[in-house]
Amino acid sequence: MTKRRVYLEDIPLDEARAMLQAALARAGKASPLPGEPIPLDEALGRVTAAPVQAKLSSPHFHCAAMDGYAVSAAATVSARETRALPLRLGADAFPVNTGDPLPAETNAVIMIENVNQADASTILIYAAAAPWQHVRLMGEDMVATETVLQINHQLRPVDLGALAGCGQQQVTVRRKPRVLIIPTGGELVPIAQQPKRGQLIEYNSLILSSQIRDAGGEASVSAIVPDDEAALRAALADAVASKPDLILILSGSSAGSHDFSANAIGTLGEVLAHGIAVRPGHPVIIGLAAGIPIIGVPGYPVSATLTGELFIIPLVRQWLGLAAPETAVVAALSTQKIASPIGDDDYVRVALAEIDGRLQATPLQRGAGVITSLVEADGLAHIPRFHEGVDRGGTLKVSLYRALSLVKRTLLIMGSHDPMLDLLATHLRRHTAGQRLVSVNVGSLGGLIALRRGEAHLAGCHLFHPQTESYNLPYVQRYMPNEPVALVTFARREQGLILPTGNPKGITSVADLSGARFINRQRGAGTRVLFDHLLAQHRISPAEIAGYGREEYTHLAVAAAVADGIGDCGMGLRAAAEAMGLDFIGLTWERFDLAIPQRYLETEAVEALLDALRGEAFKRELGAQSGYRSDATGRVIPRR
Amino acid sequence: MTKRRVYLEDIPLDEARAMLQAALARAGKASPLPGEPIPLDEALGRVTAAPVQAKLSSPHFHCAAMDGYAVSAAATVSARETRALPLRLGADAFPVNTGDPLPAETNAVIMIENVNQADASTILIYAAAAPWQHVRLMGEDMVATETVLQINHQLRPVDLGALAGCGQQQVTVRRKPRVLIIPTGGELVPIAQQPKRGQLIEYNSLILSSQIRDAGGEASVSAIVPDDEAALRAALADAVASKPDLILILSGSSAGSHDFSANAIGTLGEVLAHGIAVRPGHPVIIGLAAGIPIIGVPGYPVSATLTGELFIIPLVRQWLGLAAPETAVVAALSTQKIASPIGDDDYVRVALAEIDGRLQATPLQRGAGVITSLVEADGLAHIPRFHEGVDRGGTLKVSLYRALSLVKRTLLIMGSHDPMLDLLATHLRRHTAGQRLVSVNVGSLGGLIALRRGEAHLAGCHLFHPQTESYNLPYVQRYMPNEPVALVTFARREQGLILPTGNPKGITSVADLSGARFINRQRGAGTRVLFDHLLAQHRISPAEIAGYGREEYTHLAVAAAVADGIGDCGMGLRAAAEAMGLDFIGLTWERFDLAIPQRYLETEAVEALLDALRGEAFKRELGAQSGYRSDATGRVIPRR
Repeated sequence: MTKRRVYLEDIPLDEARAMLQAALARAGKASPLPGEPIPLDEALGRVTAAPVQAKLSSPHFHCAAMDGYAVSAAATVSARETRALPLRLGADAFPVNTGDPLPAETNAVIMIENVNQADASTILIYAAAAPWQHVRLMGEDMVATETVLQINHQLRPVDLGALAGCGQQQVTVRRKPRVLIIPTGGELVPIAQQPKRGQLIEYNSLILSSQIRDAGGEASVSAIVPDDEAALRAALADAVASKPDLILILSGSSAGSHDFSANAIGTLGEVLAHGIAVRPGHPVIIGLAAGIPIIGVPGYPVSATLTGELFIIPLVRQWLGLAAPETAVVAALSTQKIASPIGDDDYVRVALAEIDGRLQATPLQRGAGVITSLVEADGLAHIPRFHEGVDRGGTLKVSLYRALSLVKRTLLIMGSHDPMLDLLATHLRRHTAGQRLVSVNVGSLGGLIALRRGEAHLAGCHLFHPQTESYNLPYVQRYMPNEPVALVTFARREQGLILPTGNPKGITSVADLSGARFINRQRGAGTRVLFDHLLAQHRISPAEIAGYGREEYTHLAVAAAVADGIGDCGMGLRAAAEAMGLDFIGLTWERFDLAIPQRYLETEAVEALLDALRGEAFKRELGAQSGYRSDATGRVIPRR
Repeated sequence: MTKRRVYLEDIPLDEARAMLQAALARAGKASPLPGEPIPLDEALGRVTAAPVQAKLSSPHFHCAAMDGYAVSAAATVSARETRALPLRLGADAFPVNTGDPLPAETNAVIMIENVNQADASTILIYAAAAPWQHVRLMGEDMVATETVLQINHQLRPVDLGALAGCGQQQVTVRRKPRVLIIPTGGELVPIAQQPKRGQLIEYNSLILSSQIRDAGGEASVSAIVPDDEAALRAALADAVASKPDLILILSGSSAGSHDFSANAIGTLGEVLAHGIAVRPGHPVIIGLAAGIPIIGVPGYPVSATLTGELFIIPLVRQWLGLAAPETAVVAALSTQKIASPIGDDDYVRVALAEIDGRLQATPLQRGAGVITSLVEADGLAHIPRFHEGVDRGGTLKVSLYRALSLVKRTLLIMGSHDPMLDLLATHLRRHTAGQRLVSVNVGSLGGLIALRRGEAHLAGCHLFHPQTESYNLPYVQRYMPNEPVALVTFARREQGLILPTGNPKGITSVADLSGARFINRQRGAGTRVLFDHLLAQHRISPAEIAGYGREEYTHLAVAAAVADGIGDCGMGLRAAAEAMGLDFIGLTWERFDLAIPQRYLETEAVEALLDALRGEAFKRELGAQSGYRSDATGRVIPRR
């Protein structure tokens, strides 16, 4: 074997795939795997490795298709409505039930309801029987030797029935591709283990092995290998010796980790490609050792998942004799400008919603470490190589992760995020068999702007208006002056100061913040508006607050920053403080409302949402949460 | 419990479903099943029984997003391109790899490539670090207590990754619905047993248990119960005692079989509906005993499968908290007139093909006993209650059984069916990763008519023309005078007399047929044309041939009829005679051609077909078949 070490970078996706196919062909591994016979009741979802012919005809004899009497048609020609013809039982006519074989010399069945019994041994018929009437002919369904199923066919329930019906007890299906997964990274611990500070849970192997199983392969996962080239080389040598169809080396998160992988592959075989022009997912490695293909998978979970979708699932299916999986692709309008590096195939996770009859795609967070962005994504937009991206309002091609019908029943709420919106989503799903409420956090003002642009169905906001000492309504009237918008109360919530346990700096109000490191919320957030109002009340300038410029995007993130010692105080919900086990000093009860344009109010989806919101079950559960009151929940705020 | 016996008939589908739902609600069985905790690596495809919150934040500490040095941003403000700032290692700067936790009091990372090492304990930096640059913040992905997955969510690979990443080692998923299946029918034998004459293989339980497993349930199948009411009552009582979520009683084929089922259900509980206005599938029974729903499933396999799709799969999914499965629905033009009973919801299996940009649906055989019609179907057309059917050219709504992309890559060949077309289809599939060749048997002339109407991509024919003593070309020119059509030879085949083993009547040519019972082919079949020609040559009138009017539709059906003793002689292929182990006397070698309109010749699909046809592998395999010659295979017949 030649041992070339090729360190290429930014190989286009198509070229990388072609390289892999060429290497597979050289190693004699490009064709579907051989077949193995298995019993029919284990064959659901497996793929035929050869066409299947009928062993028996079905039915394998002429049989009655009705309950009645089998006769020879020729012996019945003289029967008339007005001149009954007697037939002797056991000689001219034979009682049969549906499915019974026709007795010799008979070729028709007369239905039992068209016959009279003359005596114990004679029946009377009133019409001639046509040859083969009410007879199910031998081989009506399948004739022995006929091809029943083609090669490379994934077996469905009816296929198994047809196989059994033509006398097959087994079927030869493609062996499942065997994939061996080697996770690497000194910072990683297995799922069963509680991670210490500095340790991360290794779950890429769970995602990849699940993708492989879903695609019809078998996956096994080795122990985690530390960041040590010799150890990885030894693990890879063991893997090669066990002769799987494919080996995956999962990189750890350190920047040098995939170099270890490439070196180990290069020592035992050859690296064909290192670095593929795909985002996210750049440091993919493709190699071959002892005729076994090896894929080096990047460490960030979004990159790892995408590598599975782009390279590994198609390969598993190729070995099963199936085409690459096809996902439905839809066109959607981007709600944001997306810049994309011109040399890369760029894959952007998006949330989809149908608003005013237009399908709109909102890009989700693009960090490759954020697995929840894939969990939440409704689809993946592909921005091909040589495209610079799309403008706001431009068209994206989106491969769907969810059925379009489900997407179309999704309500998109943008604005301030309240954790109890997830509770409302749960109640909605329970009562509607799957209607989704998807929440994108852009702050209270951001939500009203999205609503005005027609990018969301509703907006969540809790904006205090000092001049009128009221919540939300003045902002809605300012941001959406030309359109009737209903304001429906979601909850009243306790806002206050989130403090480390024991409140070491003895802070009791915003007046005590000098000298403390504050954790602020982003511009446009309702909590930021409230904090600014409180500062003004106390005649404190933002410049006096250390950390005023340190912005977090959610209540929980503020609480987490306080819990981690990054700040001495933040402002947010009692619920967030208690979730993190922190101290809390309440300052005010604010109103969190849902702004809903009138034109959506009478849609089925919004009606279902309001039903769930006003349901006793939801209000009871909401009111039982610390820092929440549900007495006003569901009320419509009258417009002035 | 009330024991009502209600024998209703022709209950509309919607009413029957509503009755079932009402009965489930009364029995407290309408809601999703309770949850059970299972390890993550067993949870793929299962459905969450509760929303899941993060146990840990992910990451659960601030960590480096790049390899480099962790610093306090405040300590770096004086660094300039022109004035390097020295930082002491271990005091002002700490080496970190990607993923490492930030040391206390640091809040930024400087990339290793932007740093110079001054000496062993000092680095130089050339720009101020912004706070939190190159830092992955604690909770960037998930914050502890945040909702990660909603209730009633079917778990995908990425979902399992997210669960593991937020510290979950288990997930609470809905218990799998347990379904107990009782097959009944004295004529039935299990799959493992060779059926005798009069016995049929019981495979409906395999279809239904596979449907249930596919939908996420568990199925167990009891022994086959004979047609005996007491035995069925006992089996049903045992089933009820084992407390499954659902019991299915599969009727046998006799007309009285579902009455046994209804009586047994009525004795142990109540029959809610008996006879539903759905075709095929009429004798569905819905009942309830001891709070357990019972569905009586009709005996014909197509009816049984459809009952599974309409009632059982949706119920299993309801118990899992999922909506009924959604299949893609397309509009297609019917190539035939379909009459439908006005009172029924009628489901028609169809083959689909895209021809000249139009999606066309050809109804498949409608007998409920023909399971292969479901195997071959590309979709199911629904003709709703109160509709009389559609005319030829009318629009059908078709639920797809196959991906539309696969349907669009399908070549539809109509006309005479040769078993070796299946061999060609196998070669085509092998070489194109799944392109299908679907063959609908309508006889040689029928194929040319279909081609003229634009209902097929190509036609198979073997039509002898006595006046010119040639094959096919005169017919193509007569039936398609206005369009250029290429004629490509598929094979030469040996036609002759198919005779019982040992040829008891001593038949050696068509001149010996008097006194023998002949099995003829249908009008328009090439073999019929040839037989008529031979009769004319021998100056024999069709009236002299006993059985001239007895028509079969395929070579194999003719051979099967001879094998079964229904006739003394038939005409057909040597291959069919040998498949059935019969005697054969060859009369002629005929040419079977493919007629292909010029406008399809250069499509990718037809090019792939011709490549497969002309491939050495196919020609070798075809030529090795008894009764076939492949020397002319792939040749284009010149037009005169």
